[in-house]
Amino acid sequence: MKPLRIGLAGLGTVGIGVIRLLRENADLITARAGRPIEVVAITARDRTRDRGVDLSTMRWHDSATAVAQDPEIDVAVELIGGSEGPAHDMVLTALERGLPVVTANKALVALHGDSLSRLSSEKNAPLLFEAAVAGGIPAIKLVREGLAADRLLSVGGILNGTCNYILTEMRATGRDFTDVLTEAQAKGYAEAEPSTDVDGWDTAHKLAILAGLAFRPIAFNTLSVQGIRDITATDLKFADELGYHIKLLGMARQAENGNVAAWVRPCLVPAKAPIAAVEGVFNAVSTQGVFSGPMTISGRGAGEGPTASAVVADLIDLARGTAIPVWGTTSVSPAADCASLADLNSAFYLRLNVQDRPGVMAELTSVLRDHDVSVHFVSQHDAATGCADLTIITHQVPEKAIHAAATALAVLPVVTGKPLVLKIEDAFA
Amino acid sequence: MKPLRIGLAGLGTVGIGVIRLLRENADLITARAGRPIEVVAITARDRTRDRGVDLSTMRWHDSATAVAQDPEIDVAVELIGGSEGPAHDMVLTALERGLPVVTANKALVALHGDSLSRLSSEKNAPLLFEAAVAGGIPAIKLVREGLAADRLLSVGGILNGTCNYILTEMRATGRDFTDVLTEAQAKGYAEAEPSTDVDGWDTAHKLAILAGLAFRPIAFNTLSVQGIRDITATDLKFADELGYHIKLLGMARQAENGNVAAWVRPCLVPAKAPIAAVEGVFNAVSTQGVFSGPMTISGRGAGEGPTASAVVADLIDLARGTAIPVWGTTSVSPAADCASLADLNSAFYLRLNVQDRPGVMAELTSVLRDHDVSVHFVSQHDAATGCADLTIITHQVPEKAIHAAATALAVLPVVTGKPLVLKIEDAFA
Repeated sequence: MKPLRIGLAGLGTVGIGVIRLLRENADLITARAGRPIEVVAITARDRTRDRGVDLSTMRWHDSATAVAQDPEIDVAVELIGGSEGPAHDMVLTALERGLPVVTANKALVALHGDSLSRLSSEKNAPLLFEAAVAGGIPAIKLVREGLAADRLLSVGGILNGTCNYILTEMRATGRDFTDVLTEAQAKGYAEAEPSTDVDGWDTAHKLAILAGLAFRPIAFNTLSVQGIRDITATDLKFADELGYHIKLLGMARQAENGNVAAWVRPCLVPAKAPIAAVEGVFNAVSTQGVFSGPMTISGRGAGEGPTASAVVADLIDLARGTAIPVWGTTSVSPAADCASLADLNSAFYLRLNVQDRPGVMAELTSVLRDHDVSVHFVSQHDAATGCADLTIITHQVPEKAIHAAATALAVLPVVTGKPLVLKIEDAFA
Repeated sequence: MKPLRIGLAGLGTVGIGVIRLLRENADLITARAGRPIEVVAITARDRTRDRGVDLSTMRWHDSATAVAQDPEIDVAVELIGGSEGPAHDMVLTALERGLPVVTANKALVALHGDSLSRLSSEKNAPLLFEAAVAGGIPAIKLVREGLAADRLLSVGGILNGTCNYILTEMRATGRDFTDVLTEAQAKGYAEAEPSTDVDGWDTAHKLAILAGLAFRPIAFNTLSVQGIRDITATDLKFADELGYHIKLLGMARQAENGNVAAWVRPCLVPAKAPIAAVEGVFNAVSTQGVFSGPMTISGRGAGEGPTASAVVADLIDLARGTAIPVWGTTSVSPAADCASLADLNSAFYLRLNVQDRPGVMAELTSVLRDHDVSVHFVSQHDAATGCADLTIITHQVPEKAIHAAATALAVLPVVTGKPLVLKIEDAFA
């Protein structure tokens, strides 16, 4: 049987994982795909490095673009990463040729999904990217195929294993962010330059893709993104006492008039919700559909094995003849700005460091009242001498009200340090 | 654009749900499928009943087979149920014609998957059955497409919402099986004839399908099936105290020499495992893959909306041109007997009702020792006057050893009532 011939660029962890997986499961993959899948052409920055697998049967090219131009390949696989440069060039070159593309590149799809989707459709060349969201979890297939019949109300979840690991460790050990981050870096769970992960950008890329599939493509620069640097071990402890865990979530919801409300930020989720049990480097994607109801899938969101599994699943789809439009629909809207969050209602967690003296509580709650923020629960915890931590759970209030109130509270002399506002996410209640 | 024309048999909850869903989401479905999907021919037992939806535009046939023979349909949808009779006839008739079939019929696929798979392949007519396992959860797509690249080690989970509801209620309220079953029947969560659910057969049908996709088709009559009738509220309480929940699981694992070890039975799962948080009528499917690692998906396993969502997702797949073999592979093995469980090692929970008098513990533990059952933990709870409940957690022992020990214990004069043996499932640890 004629094999499906792969040209692969990028021989890092995932690239080598793909080659290893294709070899180790060759029989099974051939039977499932209906034909063998073989990597025939490759490239990477360093040709000489020993990567622990035999690459001698593959044609070596000097650039990713050259791989995409190889006349003897049927699919281009892009595992270089980065939204611009060689990765972008390779994908464009392949699609221009009408060649199907598989990529694990979340930034590329999040930022260029609009133009790539048009090109893929014009050239009738599928662009698949299962590995771009939540690693081994088939989150893309879940939304684009499994839930294709349903109108979704929300999609999102825990999309970054590094942040989830850090928050899990902080909660388990009571240690603070910087301390746990340093350890995560030593263990290889976090990058030396951690900003992409801990400031929420990686989550944002994945969320933009999920939102594009569930609703419509969104303009990435209008997405509201907040990371986990401001979360303290104390916040995790207070949340625990109130029956919540804190998770960095990326969430998108259908808003009024066809718009999408989307955000990335640490949220409180009920301790009993399945997503709260998703710990460590695991990821989870939840959907809420009109007909399908709530659904959650969890698993390994990164790493050689899971990511390679997702890349090769896409290759099997191509071998089987699957050809679904990039955003899962033939009538794609152009990328639109995210809806304003100002008027969205939610309950919030508000943590304030205050001077511990009589009358403080009255002063603070009057500010909240003046901003129409109705309080459901207040609790005071002693902190350092003369100081206290105050945690407040609000009733449902508009985002703009809680942020205005927090700004007003921040300038009060009795309030020391910046107030922390966290949304209580009720999609998992 | 030419619509995909559906002939549908069975206008119960799911059938009406499919018609409603196709209407309510018509625009979205057309865009995702690339063409409209329309039900043009129908049948059901009672033509006159008002089902609350307008069926006037559809051709009425006198039998399911007649629907399958309608020359003006592109797909036959079987929503009658039952492994034999009209459902089986309809599916055979359609496949013989080379017509794609979508069904929600778990018994049909579990019992006749072997012959239907051959016919589907011979006639080049896809047979899709996403709704047959775990309702709205795309468990079939997860295993057959999402994890197509990976070699799975195990697959299974909570596959019956009725049993999970009953166990959840028993645990929450301390009430016993019969009491909660009666209430579930009154609420419509359990059938008047509950055996299919509570004795594990429905779970067994679904498990057989998952095992066929993950490993190879299994001979249904060799599957080990045990229901939840013997579980008492006390067992749930004891399990709780030991850090476990009790769930009715269907599990299949790769065994030696290409065989599949599979069973349906109530098991103890760690309280902290994500699957333990799956409560009430929810279902969950977990996989463990060599490359993909552990994965769990949970959601609504039954009901009009979720099941209709799964049926129509299959229709969209067909409209998109998807054509995957029944068992996800072009080299299907014939159905094989399940592997014997006798030599499989596991930890077990053993609950005994005993006379409360000196020396009992020594007598019991010596029986266990004689059967090479090594005890990890014993706990005695007072029951009625003169009686006690004894719970024992074993170390890893072969199944045959624990069952031989339980049989020997059952005949001791000090043991009153039948000992209960439950596996502690470590797939979720």
